[in-house]
Amino acid sequence: MKDTIVAVATAWAPAAIGVIRLSGPNALPIALKYFRFKRPRTRPHPRYAHLGEIWVENQLLDEVVLTYFPKPHSYTGEDVVEISFHGSPYILRRALEAFQAGGARLAQPGEFTLRAYLHRKIALDQAEAVATLIQAQSEAAHRLALSQLRGTYFQKVRQLRQNLIDYLALLELELDFSEEDVEFASRPQLRVLLLALQGEIERLLSSYRMGQAIQEGIPLAIVGEPNVGKSTLLNALLGDSRAIVSDIPGTTRDTIQERLFIEGFELRLIDTAGLRENPSDPIEAEGIRRTRKAVQEAFLTLIIIEAPRFESLEAIVAYAKKLLSELPPNHLFVANKSDLVAPHHPIWSIPEVIKLSARQGIGLEELRQKIAENLTALGASGEVLISNYRHYAAFTEALAAVQEALGLLEAGRETELVAQAMRRAAFSIGTIIGEITPEDILESIFSRFCIGK
Amino acid sequence: MKDTIVAVATAWAPAAIGVIRLSGPNALPIALKYFRFKRPRTRPHPRYAHLGEIWVENQLLDEVVLTYFPKPHSYTGEDVVEISFHGSPYILRRALEAFQAGGARLAQPGEFTLRAYLHRKIALDQAEAVATLIQAQSEAAHRLALSQLRGTYFQKVRQLRQNLIDYLALLELELDFSEEDVEFASRPQLRVLLLALQGEIERLLSSYRMGQAIQEGIPLAIVGEPNVGKSTLLNALLGDSRAIVSDIPGTTRDTIQERLFIEGFELRLIDTAGLRENPSDPIEAEGIRRTRKAVQEAFLTLIIIEAPRFESLEAIVAYAKKLLSELPPNHLFVANKSDLVAPHHPIWSIPEVIKLSARQGIGLEELRQKIAENLTALGASGEVLISNYRHYAAFTEALAAVQEALGLLEAGRETELVAQAMRRAAFSIGTIIGEITPEDILESIFSRFCIGK
Repeated sequence: MKDTIVAVATAWAPAAIGVIRLSGPNALPIALKYFRFKRPRTRPHPRYAHLGEIWVENQLLDEVVLTYFPKPHSYTGEDVVEISFHGSPYILRRALEAFQAGGARLAQPGEFTLRAYLHRKIALDQAEAVATLIQAQSEAAHRLALSQLRGTYFQKVRQLRQNLIDYLALLELELDFSEEDVEFASRPQLRVLLLALQGEIERLLSSYRMGQAIQEGIPLAIVGEPNVGKSTLLNALLGDSRAIVSDIPGTTRDTIQERLFIEGFELRLIDTAGLRENPSDPIEAEGIRRTRKAVQEAFLTLIIIEAPRFESLEAIVAYAKKLLSELPPNHLFVANKSDLVAPHHPIWSIPEVIKLSARQGIGLEELRQKIAENLTALGASGEVLISNYRHYAAFTEALAAVQEALGLLEAGRETELVAQAMRRAAFSIGTIIGEITPEDILESIFSRFCIGK
Repeated sequence: MKDTIVAVATAWAPAAIGVIRLSGPNALPIALKYFRFKRPRTRPHPRYAHLGEIWVENQLLDEVVLTYFPKPHSYTGEDVVEISFHGSPYILRRALEAFQAGGARLAQPGEFTLRAYLHRKIALDQAEAVATLIQAQSEAAHRLALSQLRGTYFQKVRQLRQNLIDYLALLELELDFSEEDVEFASRPQLRVLLLALQGEIERLLSSYRMGQAIQEGIPLAIVGEPNVGKSTLLNALLGDSRAIVSDIPGTTRDTIQERLFIEGFELRLIDTAGLRENPSDPIEAEGIRRTRKAVQEAFLTLIIIEAPRFESLEAIVAYAKKLLSELPPNHLFVANKSDLVAPHHPIWSIPEVIKLSARQGIGLEELRQKIAENLTALGASGEVLISNYRHYAAFTEALAAVQEALGLLEAGRETELVAQAMRRAAFSIGTIIGEITPEDILESIFSRFCIGK
């Protein structure tokens, strides 16, 4: 960290503005080799946007705005200089080359945030959240990343780990006085702590599937026979998503066909094969097999039926069971073509069924609400979900260690063995929040960043 | 201009930083509806980078840096607020929506620069240069755009136009006193001015082809028989370009296959058909026809020959004439495979021929130098070239008007007619630099910008 790093912090494409960021002990001297103040002076005011010019090899490169953030109150905790250029890839490349010639090193992906972590501006899991935040594409994914960035994430497990370490200190004290057979740490209280830690870690581990799904799109299956209006419904729902996505010129999302944005959640459609109420041949049986697989993978299955055909919930359930062999664990019944149903038809009084007309655009809003409520009930709105495999693996290790400690404690085994298991648990949790960070963990975390961050 | 505009000023893709810019009378009040200072205060310091948070609908959207540029010393000449977010397309879209709900209007492409022009921060041709600068992909294109942005562009024609207007005032004075038959404006001096203006405009008009080529790639043809090493040479030259371009992740340049960067110039390869010294059938004759077309379009043609086969310039010229029917007006002879030629072979003493070995990578640097020298001789390094069709069309009109004024003056015709032609010339030049700017011209100019500028 004795050297100065440089990178383009904005996306590389022609735009009004492109920002280059320098961080390190020589950030300012290097920038000032190339920067000429518009109003003559020798040093910038801290955090003040100075107009000026960048000159490279005695040629004007661009008119820019330079802002100097002196340490320690900068993003990285080091001296930082941000220079706002015209957003020309040519200009940015020339400037990068110049700053490198002037003594800066091209930053590795995530290296600015790594430095922020190393200067204790943020914890490790906060640092990881920066990369996730930038990539977040739905409100739910964004909220998750932001709460992690804010450092309130894992607060409970942080606290429990701290308690664990306090107990560990007491146990180690006992071991120092082992010949005297004293007991500083209350065993019943330690057991309560370990049970609480076990519960919290189990809760976090069980959130992993949802946490991942929120970032990558929550799998959703839509099943139904041909001609029930599945694709009309799909287009109606997708139409809204398209409208959202097309607001963003040049977004990197490649295929929006299979993505739905509903009430802040990003849903990923799982392709299901066509279904028929009375499958007659092996090909249709294969279709059912594939649909069942999709339904298993899905967090939620929409079962689309034709409203005019059904008069009771029992009939609908029986029909769905016949169609899918068994009811998916989490499903919503969606009765399409309800515009063709008379006002006194019994289907209107079945609250478990969402009535709509995909073609007329009636009832779509209620469907969206119901989907969102359903996902919220599954925990999708939780503020603390694990969404990162590194965290998942570390919590899994921690859980095993906590459970081992509990077993040893309850079996009345030697204090040293209990302490050993507790130490392993504290270590595993520590790797998540960054109290313990071997080099290789750091490297793998920050290499997933974009350069300039 | 009574409303406040907003746009994302950086490119739309996940990145460390994304900047949103507001301009107009309510830029600050709108931003402060959503911004909370990290250290409590009510208004930002001018041009000071304030840490804080953006809150939308009672939810934290992001941690940001806000900088306020009060009028008139801002880019647009209005109150401007720039907010630096994490570069998440989701966050930027949500923030844009919020600022619109707060009373800002989404900016049209180029609207920030249009406002800068309307507030007389920059002239019209300077404003146009902003868009060109951002798109510039080579040193030559960048230099051209930057010198235009600096306002030194068209300085000579600006001055001549001013002189024209001064004379026009004198002529109009004469017309006011027409009954008294006075002469305030010296006719010989006016003639000298008109001739100077004619010369300058002709010079500018003749630079148009090169000016355009610099921005779009200077057409280059490479011709030669099969197996002379054309494609090896091409790859050697392209290899360097690729290295330059691949430094830029996510650059929008789609096909670099046919682009060469040589000494700050961007060259566009024109595809030429295969050639043979002795064409025998109609298909080969068609190949020659197509090659001749490519050579006509090219600013420079590289004629590749095999070094060991030739002992004199005459032999090379005769061979090239046979191959191409006639010599291209601007060409370089490139003798490849010179590593296979003995040290005392006569080809070494022909200075008009560039000796190289594409396979060994020998002599490529000299070739690049020669290409650059050749293009410079064609005017490619000129600081003032027309590169914009609007300018070309206006100068063409101006030239016609100047020539008409000259003709009338030399024929001793009525002062009123001369003045009329001069007025037309001054008007046409005026539309370039923005002294006269009908609404529709402005609209067409600024709609070519990217949004946020």
